[in-house]
Amino acid sequence: MRKEWQERIHAQLQQEREAAARLLQEWVKEPSLQGQERPLQEKIASRLAAMGLEVDLWVMEGDELLKHPYFVSPRRTFEASPNVVGVWKGTGGGRSIILNGHVDVVPAGDEKQWDDDPFSGVIRDGRLYGRGATDMKGGNLAALLAIQTLQALGVRLKGDVIFQSVVEEESGGAGTLAAILRGYRADAALVPEPTNMKIFPKQQGSMWFRLRVKGRSAHGGTRYEGVSAIEKSLLVVQAVAELEKERNRRITDPLYATLPIPIPINIGVIQGGKWPSSVADLVTLEGRMGVAPGEEMEEAKREMAEALARLADKDPWFAEHPVELEWFGARWVPGAVAEDHPLVMLLQETYRAVVGTDPVIEASPWGTDGGLLTKLADTPAVVFGPGVTQVAHYPNEYIELDTIFQCAEIFALTLLEWCGLAEEEA
Amino acid sequence: MRKEWQERIHAQLQQEREAAARLLQEWVKEPSLQGQERPLQEKIASRLAAMGLEVDLWVMEGDELLKHPYFVSPRRTFEASPNVVGVWKGTGGGRSIILNGHVDVVPAGDEKQWDDDPFSGVIRDGRLYGRGATDMKGGNLAALLAIQTLQALGVRLKGDVIFQSVVEEESGGAGTLAAILRGYRADAALVPEPTNMKIFPKQQGSMWFRLRVKGRSAHGGTRYEGVSAIEKSLLVVQAVAELEKERNRRITDPLYATLPIPIPINIGVIQGGKWPSSVADLVTLEGRMGVAPGEEMEEAKREMAEALARLADKDPWFAEHPVELEWFGARWVPGAVAEDHPLVMLLQETYRAVVGTDPVIEASPWGTDGGLLTKLADTPAVVFGPGVTQVAHYPNEYIELDTIFQCAEIFALTLLEWCGLAEEEA
Repeated sequence: MRKEWQERIHAQLQQEREAAARLLQEWVKEPSLQGQERPLQEKIASRLAAMGLEVDLWVMEGDELLKHPYFVSPRRTFEASPNVVGVWKGTGGGRSIILNGHVDVVPAGDEKQWDDDPFSGVIRDGRLYGRGATDMKGGNLAALLAIQTLQALGVRLKGDVIFQSVVEEESGGAGTLAAILRGYRADAALVPEPTNMKIFPKQQGSMWFRLRVKGRSAHGGTRYEGVSAIEKSLLVVQAVAELEKERNRRITDPLYATLPIPIPINIGVIQGGKWPSSVADLVTLEGRMGVAPGEEMEEAKREMAEALARLADKDPWFAEHPVELEWFGARWVPGAVAEDHPLVMLLQETYRAVVGTDPVIEASPWGTDGGLLTKLADTPAVVFGPGVTQVAHYPNEYIELDTIFQCAEIFALTLLEWCGLAEEEA
Repeated sequence: MRKEWQERIHAQLQQEREAAARLLQEWVKEPSLQGQERPLQEKIASRLAAMGLEVDLWVMEGDELLKHPYFVSPRRTFEASPNVVGVWKGTGGGRSIILNGHVDVVPAGDEKQWDDDPFSGVIRDGRLYGRGATDMKGGNLAALLAIQTLQALGVRLKGDVIFQSVVEEESGGAGTLAAILRGYRADAALVPEPTNMKIFPKQQGSMWFRLRVKGRSAHGGTRYEGVSAIEKSLLVVQAVAELEKERNRRITDPLYATLPIPIPINIGVIQGGKWPSSVADLVTLEGRMGVAPGEEMEEAKREMAEALARLADKDPWFAEHPVELEWFGARWVPGAVAEDHPLVMLLQETYRAVVGTDPVIEASPWGTDGGLLTKLADTPAVVFGPGVTQVAHYPNEYIELDTIFQCAEIFALTLLEWCGLAEEEA
């Protein structure tokens, strides 16, 4: 049966290519930056409604959300950033699935580094360019195309397909958290983030930290009368590097075999001192700590605090002036589903059927909203999608259109077998 | 003779104490920050004129100044920042002397760290508080009091006394440079910066540098795909520390014996990266390099460039991405006069006469405008004044009023003997 369906799906998708590329252009041209998602979300809601899905567009709010331990966001009100869910109701008796993707995109950054306008959606040599093309409007399109294609072929599924177009993923997942709190759950979830079509049953979580390293000011000409927070921060950076080594030594999961550092700790920002000829009395470091799929975030926090406390053994300065540790900003919950979870197995099969080779199965080096779905919604989430992370968040972000159609084909076949075929009208 | 004069000068100064303290309050209450010096300079000019000095108040300008190799300043026009010079003409036949002090003060910084308003001029327990009290309005007052006291005693000197109230010292000496270009020269100069009444025949020069350390950006979750400019900057900081060691190993001058690091290199500012979960592709370091009294600044610059170039031997990254070195901002020319220079010898004698102990003779750990006077104006400059550098540039800056009067006494005696007594009318 699969072979036959695959051919029909493939043929149908070929007919959709041009319209689908135009749709992605339209989506990319909407700069759905944080706080500006409404226009695109309303377009998506209209489309889902036109496809016959039960559409739910709402602005998240309320204490249950805002005071939830997993809520992280730089803002508290979301009027311009509604969530959208469309449910393609099944006939009953089948397994349900959530297709979860985010519409929020990160800022364009330095526009001079872009060859075109950051929101051009221009297509060249089979690539569509623009902020959000890969992360992750291309993946969202693949999911939508899967539903549309099955509908075009007259398919009815037994299980529900719940298409989620959420906000706030780039800030830590408040959109998906709100969808969970609104009651959306399923037997499994697919998150079509740009995995370069690798299957990620496990995903690294991460959280941001800020360190304040103290010094004592003095004139640079008599710098020995002070204590340089810049010099002390070198020791802190080294201590964090040692902690990273120690934590990664423990990761023996073969899914991480190809990653040089499975759960990195990245110090991304350093800032200290105010005057070239003064000794700096404060350096602030900001970074991102990776959290292993099976690890509790609180446990990772504890390890960081302990590593910083151990600095006092190396240098008595830190005994009297301990490094201040703050967890701030974004946070992504790690997630893990069994490698032999039925959806992981099914995805491998449909991948082989469409692509003709064995898929790569790895653990993701970054977090997605899949962690929240797995951990909070009892909805095991697998991350798999078109596009490559190397271009996400960078100038000249693009996606290969072919990979979107390949993924859509895999998704359609997967839905068919996961949710079950109810009837065929074609 | 000295003993007799000393007693008269001392007695006269005791009568001046209250009025002098009020005058310093008045000066400190004028926030003569960079670009705001005019009101105070006009007050000082009026006072000098009232004392019968030939007063020269002018706004520095012109290509000779602005294109001079020793000109450094963040600005190019100085309308609100006139220089003031007052000449107490001698009767002829004596040695002339410049008394050089700056009126510009550094910013107050965080006002919350001050117990009083930063420009309060409040007096408590014999200390006068406020930005500029020590650096260096107290020293300027001591110089002015020396002239005033001699005048009150009816003294006429043979040599000229040239009182200079300059701007721009804190930015590298453009005010003194302009005074030199205007033709002011003398047989020697006294710079009453806060030396805690140590005599500094030699003074460290210094100059500011900026280093740009390159990296390659990547997502923090796959940080091994990038190169952290923060990690690379650790190596740069270490290389600069090694250069500092190497340069200080060569300093054998006994005047530096008590200083742990005679010519420090201070990295005072570090800044890099933009996002906690990205690998930083650029770190900027800003610092101050000390220059030895007898050293050419160009030679010191060459050593810094070479030390940075040697980084490529340690880490091939630097071969392809060399650290960029820029000399910017402030610069103070080093200076040295012989330890047996007549003014140095005379200052020791008058110090002993007034204080009763041997003065400490050291090399200064920071630059002053004395370097320019020595190097460009053929006017050997000795730095000696009241106040302690530990409180300069910091909150709650203050000066012990007693030290101002002690210095004024030493200065008056020094002027008397340096310039020579012409007549006595008292």
